Amino acid sequence: MIYLDNAATTKANDDCLQTFIKYNTDNYYNASAMYKQGNNLHKEIESAKQEILKALGANGGKIYFTSGATEANNLAIFGSNSFKQKKYLFSIGEHPSVYATAVAMQNMGYKVDFIPLSSSGEVDYDAFKKMLSQDVCFVSVMYVNNETGAVNNIKKIRELINGVNKDIKLHVDAVQGFGKLPLNVNSFGIDLCTISGHKIYGPKGIGALYVSPRCAVKAVTYGGGQEEGIRPGTYNTPLIMSFVDAIKAAVKDSATQYKYILDLKSRFVENLDSIKDKIIINGNGSPYIISISINGLRGETVLHMLEMEDIIIGTGSACSSSKVENRVLTAMGRTKDEVLGSIRISFSKHNTIEEIDIASKKLIEVINKLLTM
Amino acid sequence: MIYLDNAATTKANDDCLQTFIKYNTDNYYNASAMYKQGNNLHKEIESAKQEILKALGANGGKIYFTSGATEANNLAIFGSNSFKQKKYLFSIGEHPSVYATAVAMQNMGYKVDFIPLSSSGEVDYDAFKKMLSQDVCFVSVMYVNNETGAVNNIKKIRELINGVNKDIKLHVDAVQGFGKLPLNVNSFGIDLCTISGHKIYGPKGIGALYVSPRCAVKAVTYGGGQEEGIRPGTYNTPLIMSFVDAIKAAVKDSATQYKYILDLKSRFVENLDSIKDKIIINGNGSPYIISISINGLRGETVLHMLEMEDIIIGTGSACSSSKVENRVLTAMGRTKDEVLGSIRISFSKHNTIEEIDIASKKLIEVINKLLTM
Repeated sequence: MIYLDNAATTKANDDCLQTFIKYNTDNYYNASAMYKQGNNLHKEIESAKQEILKALGANGGKIYFTSGATEANNLAIFGSNSFKQKKYLFSIGEHPSVYATAVAMQNMGYKVDFIPLSSSGEVDYDAFKKMLSQDVCFVSVMYVNNETGAVNNIKKIRELINGVNKDIKLHVDAVQGFGKLPLNVNSFGIDLCTISGHKIYGPKGIGALYVSPRCAVKAVTYGGGQEEGIRPGTYNTPLIMSFVDAIKAAVKDSATQYKYILDLKSRFVENLDSIKDKIIINGNGSPYIISISINGLRGETVLHMLEMEDIIIGTGSACSSSKVENRVLTAMGRTKDEVLGSIRISFSKHNTIEEIDIASKKLIEVINKLLTM
Repeated sequence: MIYLDNAATTKANDDCLQTFIKYNTDNYYNASAMYKQGNNLHKEIESAKQEILKALGANGGKIYFTSGATEANNLAIFGSNSFKQKKYLFSIGEHPSVYATAVAMQNMGYKVDFIPLSSSGEVDYDAFKKMLSQDVCFVSVMYVNNETGAVNNIKKIRELINGVNKDIKLHVDAVQGFGKLPLNVNSFGIDLCTISGHKIYGPKGIGALYVSPRCAVKAVTYGGGQEEGIRPGTYNTPLIMSFVDAIKAAVKDSATQYKYILDLKSRFVENLDSIKDKIIINGNGSPYIISISINGLRGETVLHMLEMEDIIIGTGSACSSSKVENRVLTAMGRTKDEVLGSIRISFSKHNTIEEIDIASKKLIEVINKLLTM
């Protein structure tokens, strides 16, 4: 089986799983407990946070562990929504956990606006510049789009913001970028940054929110005071320690892996040369993700045809349950047919050049077969 | 080492950990994905929910998986807070994840009242009866108190509610009762029920909220539409499947284990006979938890003295980070000294009679030593 849906989820590293077991057997205690086993775990969690801050290039700041990126995005946004008279800007290309939260804020009476995308899938920087004003207090733009791989220029976003008001808070959902592409919250000027475990060969069910030293979020859930009261609940030490293992491995290997994945993607695109007039490559940013529209076909049909050949790909956002997400490609100016005919192929370190050659060959066969039917 | 802080967290069953590994290796896919691996996982999650409904004695209804009991309690309460003109009643003995959420609701302008406790640690049923009126829309009373083991008579709570208005919703935080004491959401008349993995030999980082067929909650986090939009985020399949393993084992063995744990607790109490004039047993409900106040001593000192003997106990709520929780024992009418002098001993299936004898002997020695110092 060839698995090319790594933007949906990745297979966890073995050592992450061993860490999970370790903190459930030898060291299963409650990290809030008063005795030394509890204190020691609490210290290990604090060290894990320092490791993550380092991995993010942070200069101070806080890490709050969450149940995943969805909760971290909700915390970043709802934890920052203090001013009903101010404006909140969100890129229209955001993951549903940001977009739906933005819509919920709008429904609560907050002033919410959406930044359009250019045809490349990136934020339309000119349009964004025009939307900025002294009324804006919060901007949320993802680093790498989960459907197209389009990479937003976060430094540029911050520069445009600073041209108007340095105090505007910048939230970046970096789930598809962290551990894969260069990311430095300090030099990028990020105030709030969302990361996730299961997209970087770590476990599912854990993510984190970085909060810069100049920023603070308020709690949106209430309980026993853990995480300085910002995110209460018994510390999930096994997943936290497993997550930090995955982060350390990802950051350590990110440059080498970037090159490897870029080779896979380039090969894949080259291989598709014979059908280049039948497809559109949407976006074309991160080497980890490639989105293709096949005019006249349904993405779902292509997915299932490849599935019969034991090749697993995605369509659009696999994070989004059941519904076809048209928002991102539509915002890039794609037609309804191009949206319906889109597939997503996403790579991991486990994929090989041989797999790429087989998958691209089979994809060409499937497309040609379906187009002549 | 003798671990007697099982109300804080338990050691996970081996087969739960193996299940976690399995769903991270052979079956690591995204359960929302369109291909068969995703569909199959989604079906397994649905089956897991049916198993949990069965374990709860439910007749229909929904299960929403959360990151733990804290999130489930927040979802139960915030997901039900529709009417600012109505009243919300909470027992004053609730876990911080309910109590702090109730206080947050109060700060948001909701009408919140707290039900007092009797000296046994149970809800004061007479006072509760007087608080009930047509204005009340929501009642939250825990099944077993996490600090004292006091068991609330949920059937009686429901009867009192029904005497006024059957439509009042009843939320029960059953974290310390589920899988340990008899619980049947149907015959108890529970509308919303919170359960947790790591208190019943399952993994940390997972819990669930049961919602009865006559009830509904609204989402409090937003995202990709998973869990019918009520609790979005990539399905945490490994922890879900591990959790359901723990539930099945706990429910299957609960009657046998209840008897075993009751023997441990009875032995422990018998062993303390020689110091019975120096201590007060607070509450005395669930055999799983025993709370003891030692007049003239600090619970923390006793804890650390026992720790030096490799005996691990708790003080009050170990879930509650850093701060000493005085609320519950104070509400039971304990003096400040009795509150400060309280310790919590909580048992698990892993404890033996030999451990109980050693621990109680050491506890007597420590108390006698400290009291004569």
